[in-house]
Amino acid sequence: MKLMNVKGTNDSLPNNEIVKRKVINTLTDTFEKFGYLPLDTSILCYYDLLASKYSGGSEILKEVYTLKDQGERKLGLRYDLTIPFAKVISMNAGREINLPFKRYEIGKVFRDGPVKTGRAREFYQCDVDVCGISGSYIEAEMLSMTSLAYKKLGIDIYIEVNNRKLLEGFIIESGISDELKSKVILSVDKLAKIGENGVKEELSSFNIEEEKLDKLFSYFKCTINDLDNMNITNEYFIEGREEIKELFNYINDLNLIECRFTPYLARGLEIYTGTVWEVFDEKQRITCALGGGGRYDKIITNFIDDGNTYPSVGISFGIVPICSILEDIENNSLYDLLIIPMNTNIVSLKLANKLREKGVKVIIEMNNRKIKKALESADKNNIPYVIVLGENEIDSNTIEIKDMIHSSNIKVNIDDIEEICKIIKR
Amino acid sequence: MKLMNVKGTNDSLPNNEIVKRKVINTLTDTFEKFGYLPLDTSILCYYDLLASKYSGGSEILKEVYTLKDQGERKLGLRYDLTIPFAKVISMNAGREINLPFKRYEIGKVFRDGPVKTGRAREFYQCDVDVCGISGSYIEAEMLSMTSLAYKKLGIDIYIEVNNRKLLEGFIIESGISDELKSKVILSVDKLAKIGENGVKEELSSFNIEEEKLDKLFSYFKCTINDLDNMNITNEYFIEGREEIKELFNYINDLNLIECRFTPYLARGLEIYTGTVWEVFDEKQRITCALGGGGRYDKIITNFIDDGNTYPSVGISFGIVPICSILEDIENNSLYDLLIIPMNTNIVSLKLANKLREKGVKVIIEMNNRKIKKALESADKNNIPYVIVLGENEIDSNTIEIKDMIHSSNIKVNIDDIEEICKIIKR
Repeated sequence: MKLMNVKGTNDSLPNNEIVKRKVINTLTDTFEKFGYLPLDTSILCYYDLLASKYSGGSEILKEVYTLKDQGERKLGLRYDLTIPFAKVISMNAGREINLPFKRYEIGKVFRDGPVKTGRAREFYQCDVDVCGISGSYIEAEMLSMTSLAYKKLGIDIYIEVNNRKLLEGFIIESGISDELKSKVILSVDKLAKIGENGVKEELSSFNIEEEKLDKLFSYFKCTINDLDNMNITNEYFIEGREEIKELFNYINDLNLIECRFTPYLARGLEIYTGTVWEVFDEKQRITCALGGGGRYDKIITNFIDDGNTYPSVGISFGIVPICSILEDIENNSLYDLLIIPMNTNIVSLKLANKLREKGVKVIIEMNNRKIKKALESADKNNIPYVIVLGENEIDSNTIEIKDMIHSSNIKVNIDDIEEICKIIKR
Repeated sequence: MKLMNVKGTNDSLPNNEIVKRKVINTLTDTFEKFGYLPLDTSILCYYDLLASKYSGGSEILKEVYTLKDQGERKLGLRYDLTIPFAKVISMNAGREINLPFKRYEIGKVFRDGPVKTGRAREFYQCDVDVCGISGSYIEAEMLSMTSLAYKKLGIDIYIEVNNRKLLEGFIIESGISDELKSKVILSVDKLAKIGENGVKEELSSFNIEEEKLDKLFSYFKCTINDLDNMNITNEYFIEGREEIKELFNYINDLNLIECRFTPYLARGLEIYTGTVWEVFDEKQRITCALGGGGRYDKIITNFIDDGNTYPSVGISFGIVPICSILEDIENNSLYDLLIIPMNTNIVSLKLANKLREKGVKVIIEMNNRKIKKALESADKNNIPYVIVLGENEIDSNTIEIKDMIHSSNIKVNIDDIEEICKIIKR
């Protein structure tokens, strides 16, 4: 028997899980303030659904875990939360669900791919999407939400913002041929990682002339105000410019100072059709993006394929990088109080229950360990307060609360629950 | 392409998911007050682990979803949270985890079995367990926690409590042969469902004489106080009696009036070694158990098999039946406020964001629908308050909050965020 974890999977033990719980609660609380509703979709999907025309192309299909049920149906484990989102809309729109549909989902996805640092085969995604709203107003609201969410998490961020049409307009204007566009986008996307020279080197290998690349990179240095003075007339540029200007009007009016116009931001995949953004840790404790988002007007439209259009925008929050930042900051005490009963089981449990009803996290020593042993374990677990409850304490009606951090004792009446709570929660 | 759900799976849409979120938050909050820590284990497991000696016997193995990864490792989807619990203890005890280890886990499990009403192939389990504590003190604490959890959920319950040794003592004392014991336990477990005659009929088919059955059923009528006056001397009975008496001393002292001694309660599986209990809806809106628990001192001990003993107690909360009771009671408003901007996008979004920071759930009409249409949709979604924000409102600095439930309007200064919150949250 293998008492071990499957390659690429792991368990979230309490120390980490407490941080993850806090992150998820903070995020969902924020999402709900902005009118996003919770959704929880099935992990098991028909393989045909996962292999349907959206998908991240055939690449991702290599990483789908496949299986069969007893009825010999071909199934797969979901590899993202976007396909389930599209499925739910398609199955329920006009009945259980009305457009615009704003939802969030936090759940596990599975990818049987190479296992690298920070990349697991079973991991959480956290997606917030809206289907059924065009234009930049909703994108501005999403950037507001992103700003508030990270503020509540206590992480200073900056947000790189761009528009895919604008980027394509720059590529076209540089004279790069249409069939090389995707390659250029994927390469430019690595700019922060491999630098201008790295990107240029990679693109030279596709036989793109140097002057074209120089022209492209000169565009990448423009500011939002420069856009009005650029002599570019292709329709991608014109449309992209209008969209990004409208968005930055909102950004300025809303004083979202963390947003930075970043004309080379591509955001990988080809799914995006307009605005894109990525979120970074201002302190650079993590250098990869903490999350990002963008508009994808075609995926769900093509996916459902019922003649209607389904313009959509979505954000992802990277639970793993966010937790890894906060795990280093937060000093989590798992319990507020340890009670050590000395032949006072009932009174101890009654006291614990009264405090629990008031919101105190109480653990009781139940293995009759010696006081010294129990105190050592309290220390190891960062438990800030301890009460040793013996018959003397009951007789005198007075207990002593040991403050483990300041090594002091506070005497208090055993029935004065309010006072005990006040001491423990201060 | 199949835009449909896999047989035996379903999506939790917002209306249901909101109730499930509330239930899970209430439960986890209670668990943490009692010193249980969160754990989140992997869904993918090595098949050998799932097939190891614990397991619910070979029956459950028929229902395991099996698959292979690209490295041809034989995997399975977890079918409960107990095996992962044992795995985590075995892998981490003495390092990341110290005994006693109190943890809760809420997560999906998978069983490829027959699909009946209320039985899905992908469903949630919610388990609260402690490993490393013997005796009835911890069981009494668990019953306290169960009582508080359902109180916070707003569900009146009663708890049937028994001891497996006591039940086995009764069976032995009735003269039923040892090899029939398991069959009798499984049959007696159906007593509430099929009645005394049903059980007797079933047991007669195993050639158990009527007088033995009559004797057994006469024991089932005893009260906790009767136990002291029964002339039974087998060691199962003696041990079981001591344990259940000790537990009921705690129950009485803690005034857990929802607990009822139920000498025929078996709680199905053969895993339990001492105390068992099941929780029922007092109002019988759901007749099957909402959850239950019990002591299982051997499973983890046998599973880890390292020479140490791992006495354990665990409770399950039935997320599905609990939610189905609460869905009928709760009238959930998904949003607190709808703002309809009339050429006031920025001011509307700023107002919304200020209210969101104060905890109000705000949704903004972003598709420029006619006011009438937007109000109709607010009505349909039970949104209690609406603000139509036009240029007049900005000029006069005054907005009108429409109370959709009482069909009244309240005028208020647009900058008086506190007052607006007060109106919406009252």
